[in-house]
This record gives sequence, structure tokens and C-alpha cells, in this order.
Amino acid sequence: MHKLKRYERFADDIAELIRTGVLLPNQRVPSVRHASRTYGVSPATVFKAYYLLEDRGLIQARERSGYYVREHAQRPLQQPGIGPRQLHATEVGVSELVFSVLGSLKDPHTVPFGSAFPSPDLFPLGRLARSMGQSLRRLKPFDVIADMTAGNADLRRQIALRYRLSGALLAQEELVITNGALEALNLCLQAVTVPGDLVAIEAPAFYAALQVLERLKLKAVEIPVHPRTGIDLQVLEDSLARLPIKACWLMSSFQNPLGASLSAASGQAVAALLQRYQVPLIEDDVYAELYYGSQPPRPLKYYDQQGLFMHCGSFSKSLAPGYRVGWVAAGRFAEKVSQLKLMTTLSPSVPAQAAIADYLQQGGYDRHLRKLRHQLQAQQAAMLASAARHFPASTKVTQPQGGYFLWFEFPEQVDALKLFRLALAHGISLAPGPIFSATRGFGHCARLNHGHPWGAQSEQAMAVLGQLLQHEASVATTEDAVADVQPSVGA
Amino acid sequence: MHKLKRYERFADDIAELIRTGVLLPNQRVPSVRHASRTYGVSPATVFKAYYLLEDRGLIQARERSGYYVREHAQRPLQQPGIGPRQLHATEVGVSELVFSVLGSLKDPHTVPFGSAFPSPDLFPLGRLARSMGQSLRRLKPFDVIADMTAGNADLRRQIALRYRLSGALLAQEELVITNGALEALNLCLQAVTVPGDLVAIEAPAFYAALQVLERLKLKAVEIPVHPRTGIDLQVLEDSLARLPIKACWLMSSFQNPLGASLSAASGQAVAALLQRYQVPLIEDDVYAELYYGSQPPRPLKYYDQQGLFMHCGSFSKSLAPGYRVGWVAAGRFAEKVSQLKLMTTLSPSVPAQAAIADYLQQGGYDRHLRKLRHQLQAQQAAMLASAARHFPASTKVTQPQGGYFLWFEFPEQVDALKLFRLALAHGISLAPGPIFSATRGFGHCARLNHGHPWGAQSEQAMAVLGQLLQHEASVATTEDAVADVQPSVGA
Repeated sequence: MHKLKRYERFADDIAELIRTGVLLPNQRVPSVRHASRTYGVSPATVFKAYYLLEDRGLIQARERSGYYVREHAQRPLQQPGIGPRQLHATEVGVSELVFSVLGSLKDPHTVPFGSAFPSPDLFPLGRLARSMGQSLRRLKPFDVIADMTAGNADLRRQIALRYRLSGALLAQEELVITNGALEALNLCLQAVTVPGDLVAIEAPAFYAALQVLERLKLKAVEIPVHPRTGIDLQVLEDSLARLPIKACWLMSSFQNPLGASLSAASGQAVAALLQRYQVPLIEDDVYAELYYGSQPPRPLKYYDQQGLFMHCGSFSKSLAPGYRVGWVAAGRFAEKVSQLKLMTTLSPSVPAQAAIADYLQQGGYDRHLRKLRHQLQAQQAAMLASAARHFPASTKVTQPQGGYFLWFEFPEQVDALKLFRLALAHGISLAPGPIFSATRGFGHCARLNHGHPWGAQSEQAMAVLGQLLQHEASVATTEDAVADVQPSVGA
Repeated sequence: MHKLKRYERFADDIAELIRTGVLLPNQRVPSVRHASRTYGVSPATVFKAYYLLEDRGLIQARERSGYYVREHAQRPLQQPGIGPRQLHATEVGVSELVFSVLGSLKDPHTVPFGSAFPSPDLFPLGRLARSMGQSLRRLKPFDVIADMTAGNADLRRQIALRYRLSGALLAQEELVITNGALEALNLCLQAVTVPGDLVAIEAPAFYAALQVLERLKLKAVEIPVHPRTGIDLQVLEDSLARLPIKACWLMSSFQNPLGASLSAASGQAVAALLQRYQVPLIEDDVYAELYYGSQPPRPLKYYDQQGLFMHCGSFSKSLAPGYRVGWVAAGRFAEKVSQLKLMTTLSPSVPAQAAIADYLQQGGYDRHLRKLRHQLQAQQAAMLASAARHFPASTKVTQPQGGYFLWFEFPEQVDALKLFRLALAHGISLAPGPIFSATRGFGHCARLNHGHPWGAQSEQAMAVLGQLLQHEASVATTEDAVADVQPSVGA
């Protein structure tokens, strides 16, 4: 969609040097003159690239001395490794745990590290409201009924256009507009399974995927995910070869909760595997627009030659939270998915569809997205730095190149569910590891949300978490940790 | 909600005389002076009552001679009887048939007798758009996320208030806002059943109920419905006594497709039965607001002492089609239903909820409803009169006291599915009987929608249907009926 400018490409190169540790924290980045000469770009391009990197929170200017890598731009904590492989299917029973975590987020005074959403302050709600007004004035009464079945025609056109601009050619008829991506995922899974079937999912996985499996009485075959490179190809292949797997549900980019992304080569390999075994893919790609680099990641759907892959997207995480408008490009399953939708909810809200269609037509979505990505990346840097200051040194943490989640692996003695309860008593929410696992694994892990503007309250909350962690890591058996730490952080 | 005025009570009395045939078509209604003396009401009250009856299409003024019963005010066609009783459970497989009917409604030029919705022109879409604008300006960013789980607080208050005004006291916590009533019905059924369970439903029944049963692999126990008095109490009791029924899904008022309503006594009896056998009720009450009389019908939920009844309502048929906002007062199952919603669609659109809440707070809903009811009643009278003019004399038809459906029982030789195809070739849709039955019964019946303003096109469409019916009734075996009748009606 967004054609890469030269200064953006150059900024990406420098960011990669920082990420991989070639440029270290507090190290001076090449001077403008030096960089211009070395990389063969104009001084203006270097200036613009450095300005962009400063905006992303990776470097900072020091008066009269040039640009330096920020202290927290590079990861001071280690990256976690991959989980154990398990070649068997598991009945799922995680819902109650998830609901207790979700329930903890209702209080607006709780520090929302456990939230699944970025801050609604990051979205153009005013502009959307104007689009709503304009589109409702234009909407003819018959549209209100007609748009219920196929979905708003303008919206479907706009979504198809965005696919086309990103290189994926698909027929508009493949698109089904849904009540958020969550409904799309539910319907896709129902379209290709019956109760008792085996479904390959990631470990750890988005908890809603586990809940859907539980509700539909499907069995999970957990495939380990590497925190940086994504799903384990070898285990996936073994599982497909040895078990009668009926569907595969995965996130190719900024996987929830790990933030892992498949490389282009791995993506192509996964796509080839699924096609070889003729296993339908349900691709949850709700963070697709939240990449920090200058190029969007390529979904597996891109490699779909046979209509076997269902690609689920949403505006909830990138534009319009609460509007509940998502979609699926469902390939050969489009009619089945559409029929299931007619039977269960009939249609997403017509005004919400029309408002988003108008917003997309007016333009400005890509500008909003660029700003949003920079904010999320800067907030990630702030949370990483804060974790390095406060958490035990043996803590491991991911550093995804998109989205708004960090995944922490704490010292083994830490019980994430206990930590969840202790933190909540201090007005801080978090998403404990076990809710992301059919087998209740990841007991010493947690997902923290950095989708909210960073401030003193966030910093203080990290300090409290740090104290709780230090205490738990040293005396994991005592139950009186609550009394030992700072008072609560929530206002 | 609406306290009955004296002239409205008097108008209802006269309407009942017309309905029961005490006053016949073209008969003069009592003069104002006579009525005033006989019934002990003021002349002004009589005047207002007659004006109201004229508005409802039941009587008309003739110059210098007073008011007369309109020709089509009373039913010239017979009422149908009750279907056969079947004390066994049936696997459901009706979906494909339903989708072919639904698909026929997409063309805006088709005469929409087969539609499930009233004309969107009957709704205050402009006023709703203004409420949308106002509520979006008021909405705080955090609300966008908070309103997703519990639902918009103002909306829940307004719905609870309307229950309270109608005499049903319920806790706001019992209310779950859903994507239309259809999602509510789906979730309720899931909350109390597992695949393979038996569910008591009506015969004929709303086709979506059959589709949900099919999708959830539940078995239908069909209880016959009398076209005027509703579900057969004796068969229901026998079924509950002899079969392990896990839930009962029914419509107590203006049942779809028959339009039947339970009397207060029958309603109380059904409620007592379900409570005796401890069978949860899923009460589909989406036409509750569309009553023609002066008093709202009383839902079975009114008699619920144990939180056993789930009462599903919606704004889709009475205020805001396409907004997809419904709800359920789910009694003791509220938490379970709410959790199922979080797992499948998360939430209905927050702006749509806020707009309806604002509209309800502004007032004017009851005024709109009174106007809507009069329109629907007048359109019913027009369709009944037209059917009497054009359809075979042996056709039977219901005359519901609310809603916007008529149920026709044609001569036995008529194949409703063939009629559906023939009519569609002439640009006319209808809902053939078999889509309302798990056992593909009602082969010579159809449901016709009178929810659209009556005009020359409607009249012509009825004439074409009449010709098709006369032809089918006389030579039911020939297949060349299409050529024999008028050209198509659709614009």
C-alpha cells in the first residue's frame, strides 16, 4: 500500500543494526556526513531517517554531539526460547480462567497491562464519528436491509482494494464482513470441522482460539512457537503427517501472545505444507497493520492457490475499536461461512460498516496507521527499558517488530497465576501464561500490553511488578507477599 | 407502558365486534349519538374512537351517512386449523432451502412478500442518525472498550425500564445485549443444550430456529401451533412428560409464521408446565411491540419465578433495522450467555448501542410505535382484502392481531415450493411453508409479508399470485404454468 521511500528504507537498515546489537545502547550512530558517504544517500535522506528513528524511540539527539542509540533501544533482557514439543491432542478447558482475567479489566482505574486492546485514545474516533454522520445521511433505507446479507458494498470494495495493493488478488465474492475478526474465526472453524476433530494451533496461542475449540468440542494439537521465528515447521510437518488434523489456526505475523512473525521463507514453507496435506488454514491476522518496519508482512493467504486459506482481518485493533467490524477472505469456504453468519448473527451493524467504508474512501487511514505504529513502537521501547530497570535480571522478554504485546518469561519459581492475583490487588492487570495454553503450560510467563501511552503510572506499575517478582523469585513459597510491597498504583 | 385511554378501549371493543363478525362488512357502525348513549361514553370519545378505527383501516366514512365497516375489515377467507401432532424427535435439515429463499430477496425490484423484515421506510432512520451523532460526540474513548463486555449502560437501563413499566421486574444484571435477537437465541440454546439433545419447538416454526437446531446438532420435537390460540398445550404436556426435552423455544406473541398469540390463561399454563418439568424456556419475542390492540401482550417471562425463562427481544423489527441490537433477559443463565457471547462475537457494535440508547432517552419511541402499529394493521387489512379478491375461495388465511405476516393455507393441490419458483419468475417473492418445518410439512402453505406500504404494485402482485394459484389448484400436474399468466410485476 505504502510505497517505501528511500529515507524509510535507510531508517529500517539502521533499526536492524540496533536490533541485532551491531549498534549498542549509548553508542553514537554514524554522523550525517559519514552516513551519507558510506551508504550513498543524500544528507537530507539521512536527516529524515534519523528524525524517524528518534520518533520511533530508537535514537536520541544529544546537544552538539549528534545522535545516540537510546539506552532501552536494544534489548537488555534475554529472549525466551521455544516451548516443549507435544505430539498429541488435548481437550480444552481454559474458559473459566480467561473470564476471570477478562473480568479484571472492567475497572478503568486498573493499569491495563492485561488488556487485549490498545488505548482507544490512539484512534481517530472523532473522524470516524464524522464519517458515521456522512454515511448515515447517504444511506438509502433499502441499503439498511440489503447491506445485512452481503455486507456494505463500499466496504467490501475498499477491503478488496487494500488486498490488491498489497499484492494479493482476490475476488470480492470471497469476502464476508463479520462482527469483528472473532466471529470470522469462529465461523471459519465451524465451516471446516465437526465436534471431535483435531485442530493444529500454536503453543502458546491466543486464548480465544482455545475457547472456540472448547466450545466446539474440538481437540487441540499444540505446535510450539518460537518467540522470534514463529511456529515450529518440523513439529507442524510431523503432526500433519501423523494425525488426522482437520484445520490449522495460526497467526503468521505478531503472533498473540509471543509477537513472533514467520519469515517470508517460513511462511511459504507453512503454506506449502498445508496445501500438500490439504488442511484448511484459518489465518488470524488482526495485527497485520501494526508493523514497525517499513514494509507490511506478507500473510500466508498470499500463497493460496486453491482457496484453501481463510484470512481473517479486523478494524478493531487498527482503526475502530468497539465498532465490531471484521472480515474474512474465505476462499472456497466463503459461501459456507456466509451461511453460518446468516444463521447466527445475520450481519454486523450496518451503520458501523458504512462509517468505516466512508472513512476509508475519504483517505487518511495510512497516515493514521503510520502514526499509530510509531506510537506503539515507542511505547514498546519504554516498557522494555522499564522492565530492564525493575524486573529480575534472569527475566526473558520478546521484542516483536509489531503489535503491542511483550511476552515475559520470569524465573521458574514465579507462579504467573499468583502474580496475576497479587498484581490485581495492587491495581495492575496482566495476562498470565496459562490462559494461552490448552495444557496450562507457561506457568511462569505473562503477556503485558504496551498499547497505552507511557507515563509515570505505567513506570510505577512496572516497579511494583518488579518488587512482586523479586519477592516471588526469592521466596516462592510464602503467601504474604502482598504486604511487603508498595501500595496500589491504580488511581 | 402506554396507559389505555377511554377512546382507545372503546375502539378496541368496536374492533372486536368487527373481527368476530358481529358487525359485517358494509354494515353501518352505531351513530355517534347512539353509541354514546348505549356505551355510556361521551360523543367526543366516540368520535376519537371512530377516527382511530378509520386510521386502522377498519371503518370508513361515507359522506353524510356516517361510518361503515370496510369491505376487507372482516375476514372473507376462512381461518386455517391446527397441524397434525407428532410425538417424536426429528433431525433437522432445512438450511439449503431457506438460503435459496433468502437469496431471492436480494433484488430490490422483487415484490418482497417473502421478506422477514418490514419496509425500512417505516422507521425513523433520520432521527436515529441524529441520535448516533449526539451519542458519538458524548462517548468517551474508554466507553468504546468498556461497553463491549457488559453492553452500553444507558441502553441496559432503558431496556430494564421498559420491562419495569410493563410489569416485569428484572435485575439489570440479567440483561445481555446481543447482535440482534438472532444471536441471543443462538447463545441461549447453546447455554442449555449439548449436541444430540431434544428441543421442543413450534410447528410451523421460525426457520432460523430450525437452522440453529441443525447447526448445533439438536433434535426437534415439533409441537403443533393453532393459528389463533398458539401452541397445543396437551401435546406440549405429553411431550414434556414422555421425552427428555432439554429446552423449549417458542414465541408467545404473533408467532412466526402463524401470527398466533397465547391468551393470558394459556401463557400462564405453558409457564407452569415448563416450571413443573424444569425445562428452560427460550422465548423469542421480537414482535412484542407490534400489537394492534391497545394493550401489549404479556410474555411468558412475566410468570418466571425461578430465572428459568430467557426472554429475547430486539430493536430490528420495531425501530432500527440493520443496527443489529437485540438483547436477552436470561435469568439464571445470564452469566453463561454472556460468556458465550464474549467467545463468539465479543460485543454488538458500540456506536449502534449508543445511538439506540440516546433515541430511547430522547423519547418518541412510543409515538413511533403507535404509528407503526397503525400502518401495519392497515396494510394487513389491505392484503386480506386483496387475497379475498384474487385467491381461490377455498384458501384459508390467518388474521393475527399484531406483526406483519399472514399465513395462507392454499388448496391441497398447490405445491408451495413450485409456487415459490413460479412467483419468483414473475418478480414476486414469498416464504413457502416447508421452510418452517423440520419435517418439510406445510407443503401447500406460505407466509406473506404485509410490512410494506400497500400500492398498485402490491395489488398487481396479489393478482398474479391469484392466477398462479387458480392454475395450480386446477391443473396441479402441468409444468407450463409460467406462460399462462400475466407478465412480471417487479419494476
